[in-house]
Amino acid sequence: MEQKKQSKQVIRIGLLGFGTVGQGVWKHLQGNDSALERRLGVKLELVRAAVSDLKKKREVRVPASRLTDDPYAVVDDPSIDIVCELIGGTKLARTLTLRALKAGKIVVSANKALICKHGEEIFSAARRAGTHYFFEASVAGGIPIIKTLREGLVANRFSLIYGILNGTSNYILTRMEREGLSFPDILDDARSLGYVEADESLDLDGWDAAHKAVILAYLAHGRWVKLKEMLVEGIRGITQYDIAYARELGCKIKLLAVISRDFSTNCLSVRLHPALISKRELMASVDEVYNGVSLTGDVVGTTLLVGRGAGQDATSSAVISDIADAVYLLKGVPAPFICEEDEDVYAALGAEVELAGPEAIRSAYYLRLRVKDQPGVLARVTDVISREGLSIATMTQHQEAGEGTATLLFTTHQSNEKVVSATLKSLKRLGSVLETPFLLRIFNP
Amino acid sequence: MEQKKQSKQVIRIGLLGFGTVGQGVWKHLQGNDSALERRLGVKLELVRAAVSDLKKKREVRVPASRLTDDPYAVVDDPSIDIVCELIGGTKLARTLTLRALKAGKIVVSANKALICKHGEEIFSAARRAGTHYFFEASVAGGIPIIKTLREGLVANRFSLIYGILNGTSNYILTRMEREGLSFPDILDDARSLGYVEADESLDLDGWDAAHKAVILAYLAHGRWVKLKEMLVEGIRGITQYDIAYARELGCKIKLLAVISRDFSTNCLSVRLHPALISKRELMASVDEVYNGVSLTGDVVGTTLLVGRGAGQDATSSAVISDIADAVYLLKGVPAPFICEEDEDVYAALGAEVELAGPEAIRSAYYLRLRVKDQPGVLARVTDVISREGLSIATMTQHQEAGEGTATLLFTTHQSNEKVVSATLKSLKRLGSVLETPFLLRIFNP
Repeated sequence: MEQKKQSKQVIRIGLLGFGTVGQGVWKHLQGNDSALERRLGVKLELVRAAVSDLKKKREVRVPASRLTDDPYAVVDDPSIDIVCELIGGTKLARTLTLRALKAGKIVVSANKALICKHGEEIFSAARRAGTHYFFEASVAGGIPIIKTLREGLVANRFSLIYGILNGTSNYILTRMEREGLSFPDILDDARSLGYVEADESLDLDGWDAAHKAVILAYLAHGRWVKLKEMLVEGIRGITQYDIAYARELGCKIKLLAVISRDFSTNCLSVRLHPALISKRELMASVDEVYNGVSLTGDVVGTTLLVGRGAGQDATSSAVISDIADAVYLLKGVPAPFICEEDEDVYAALGAEVELAGPEAIRSAYYLRLRVKDQPGVLARVTDVISREGLSIATMTQHQEAGEGTATLLFTTHQSNEKVVSATLKSLKRLGSVLETPFLLRIFNP
Repeated sequence: MEQKKQSKQVIRIGLLGFGTVGQGVWKHLQGNDSALERRLGVKLELVRAAVSDLKKKREVRVPASRLTDDPYAVVDDPSIDIVCELIGGTKLARTLTLRALKAGKIVVSANKALICKHGEEIFSAARRAGTHYFFEASVAGGIPIIKTLREGLVANRFSLIYGILNGTSNYILTRMEREGLSFPDILDDARSLGYVEADESLDLDGWDAAHKAVILAYLAHGRWVKLKEMLVEGIRGITQYDIAYARELGCKIKLLAVISRDFSTNCLSVRLHPALISKRELMASVDEVYNGVSLTGDVVGTTLLVGRGAGQDATSSAVISDIADAVYLLKGVPAPFICEEDEDVYAALGAEVELAGPEAIRSAYYLRLRVKDQPGVLARVTDVISREGLSIATMTQHQEAGEGTATLLFTTHQSNEKVVSATLKSLKRLGSVLETPFLLRIFNP
């Protein structure tokens, strides 16, 4: 790296992957080059993009000489200063990333799954090679959340970070809320609009947002949380019953990542689940494909950032801001930020923290039960609930005319996961309960 | 500066001014020192604070030896690396800032009035001395808007930046909206809570927010706009008539800074005025003392940042983030950002821009007229309005029983300042119009 820290007139960039984001980066670097290059004081040269299929038709036209189907022709090219890893996945991406870092290149990435799984190894490889790994685009797309967390709000310790980190599920929930349609109906639409990832579980079961929560938790608290240590629930089970009742309660249902830390006990809790949230919170108005992140710091109070969480352009904006940061590094402009390579900083931070498992979650809850519509059922259900120690706050009953069934909707006062899961088990054993009870948490920031 | 760019174990900080913000910075640097110092990899030493009255009682206790009533004992102390200018005002603050910069110190400031008035001179002094001037705290308090604009969203050109940049006026408008009380009533409360600056005109006539708009416009477009080139209107004239009618229209009234640029003509418009804004916009829900800034970039789309815009803690958070950036500089950590000292960058940006004066504003408008409650008056008023070329969209009339007067509220379709001000003049000449007509713009981002 040292020899690069002189003023440099041309910075050479290689892309791994030339899908939606890769083409967006190319397009915007080309489109904006005069303004951006003037700002950065360098010429940016897009050397080469590695693709899986050379013959594929693409939206962005690139001379054939600048495409290759050999990713090593990017990673091993000694003339390339910055490698943008935009292929996704965690296998080849890991190999190529480690190889590029080892060669002293700066790597820019939007790959949340890779960081979530191999972040520790990657950051350490960057540190050993004396280079840097940037990943602003990995969380919340165009919102500069990582820069805000590490630099803009560096004075703070964060008792709560929460937000909407998956645009697709937010889009589905927003349309369910506005149009009264079912989850499967809206999902079909979202699929046909290309909003759902090929691996649908990433969007629908919460894994994509969970990856992002892991990254934010590490940056704020220095602890790598494993997905299996977290509560992760997606949006598949949500029905119009839930949405309508949430509305009655003055709430909306949002898929929320919650990273909370109690500084008196140093317990850290990281979780991802749909939750009822009061419409009085600005976060409840973050709709459609937008993402929102709320950060509560001990000095600054609460700051909310809202923006496009995905899509070609928003993600390109974040990748390009990382490229700009990388350019400053390469130019040797001394300027501020905390690098993920400061392993000691994060190790020390993380050492203070005790991870609280899902069982430690305390919350008010919402329960939906489908039951036989018979005399005495409601009494039996409420009896079970109160015997298990759960205190009912509100209740409503919908009779399904002609089917002999009813749907019971409850909210409870503050309780905890142990009590609520024991309650669900007992309820399930009742002969009059027809389906596995459905549960949502009520989030009160 | 060069000799400082080695690794350094102790960074020495001096404060100019030890009022609310100065004490906040001191408190949080002390309170957080272990975490922050670990993050920064240095020891931060608070050397000395310059105060105007040594005997004044203060919330934060500091040994007498660390206070001085001679600001030059801070600025001229060769051992001090970073000077935080927190005295406000534009005279002594300018002298001390220029002197500290000339001595090669990094200066951190929250002084929007100073930057607005003398930013060009200060930035150029920093550049000449090879040092830096940081001012995150000058705009929107704890929201890292300057870092976001310059670094996080560096890929973008901004067609629209708008927002709520003055917490005091937002607090007053919010309470007027919620409680139905008059401007003078709420103002009294705000004064007794200490929310209003000593120079009330800064908050109530829009000057404080205008200073901030000038800074954002410079950072985004490289052009220093003079206050006298801008439309600047405060909130003093707003009544419950306006707030209630805005509500009927699905709007709220917010004091908005608007920085818009048309990239086809390169016209830049910077203005500050209260406006009706639809409740569908998240910005309309930024209430109380909160600030909000919305940025629309050509790559990222629209990003919104919301947070505390003022107050000891939020402002301290921003000052400390600047201190952290300064520490990285002093440590010679190469890392990214664009400095205000890159005069060429901004000069080139600014050269592209044509400033559009207030007369170029196009908007829909809201008008309030107090008139004699007599037959034929409404016809005369609407006749004048349409003869001047203004097209009425909605109208409502409130009769003031017993007073023989009525208040007419209009909204118009899209028009421009020339037409609307000619209309106001003609209306004022009508014998049946009792007061100077009141005008608000309707902002539609």
